[in-house]
Amino acid sequence: MVPGATLAHVGIAVTSLVEALAFYREVLHVEPGPIEEADGSTLVSLSLGTTSIELLEATDPDGPIAKFISRRGPGIHHLCYRVPDLDVALERCRSEGYRLIDPIPRLGAGGHRIAFIHPKSTAGILIELTE
Amino acid sequence: MVPGATLAHVGIAVTSLVEALAFYREVLHVEPGPIEEADGSTLVSLSLGTTSIELLEATDPDGPIAKFISRRGPGIHHLCYRVPDLDVALERCRSEGYRLIDPIPRLGAGGHRIAFIHPKSTAGILIELTE
Repeated sequence: MVPGATLAHVGIAVTSLVEALAFYREVLHVEPGPIEEADGSTLVSLSLGTTSIELLEATDPDGPIAKFISRRGPGIHHLCYRVPDLDVALERCRSEGYRLIDPIPRLGAGGHRIAFIHPKSTAGILIELTE
Repeated sequence: MVPGATLAHVGIAVTSLVEALAFYREVLHVEPGPIEEADGSTLVSLSLGTTSIELLEATDPDGPIAKFISRRGPGIHHLCYRVPDLDVALERCRSEGYRLIDPIPRLGAGGHRIAFIHPKSTAGILIELTE
């Protein structure tokens, strides 16, 4: 079987990590993982099956999460798909005309290689690819 | 081990299923499941690990997907969490003060019992619970 793509995580921009975590604790009884720092924000991950929810609270007022919230309010910021080979997936993006924010992969939270695709190419949804 | 909550699917409101499916086919090499009808929309599901993406194109101009797109444009419409016991989870919602759109579970796509929580209670994100 050829390994397929999976949803790695859903990134959610929140104004308060403490308030956002309440729902996951009180209703779903899910406890968060350790606090991380990424892209001008504090990040907390919640494991839900083979995927996870990343709650992101801005720390840098000029960072992408602060800008997203000031423009659109809190909400779902991006989807991250895990692919078997990131370089092959980026090559497919290029050949099919998808606009890449990161033409060359960079290191994201947890030290994984990642690349973002511009939401203009994907019906307004910011998509991150990782391996 | 107590079975925990998992992310069942991410619902995405799109203006064109054909255009939205292109990214999943061309870049992720994921093929869609059968076409279903739900809540005034045509729904196509893509399996990605233990979770899935539901692409929703409005068929009823007065349905929730048409209203969402006319108000906010295409984008992520809701997150659906699978819980071990829906009645217990709804009782927790009530006791913690979350506002329910469906105080009593109803049948959703695929014949599963579902209930929606009002986004006012959950930082602007529409959340569906299922078992």
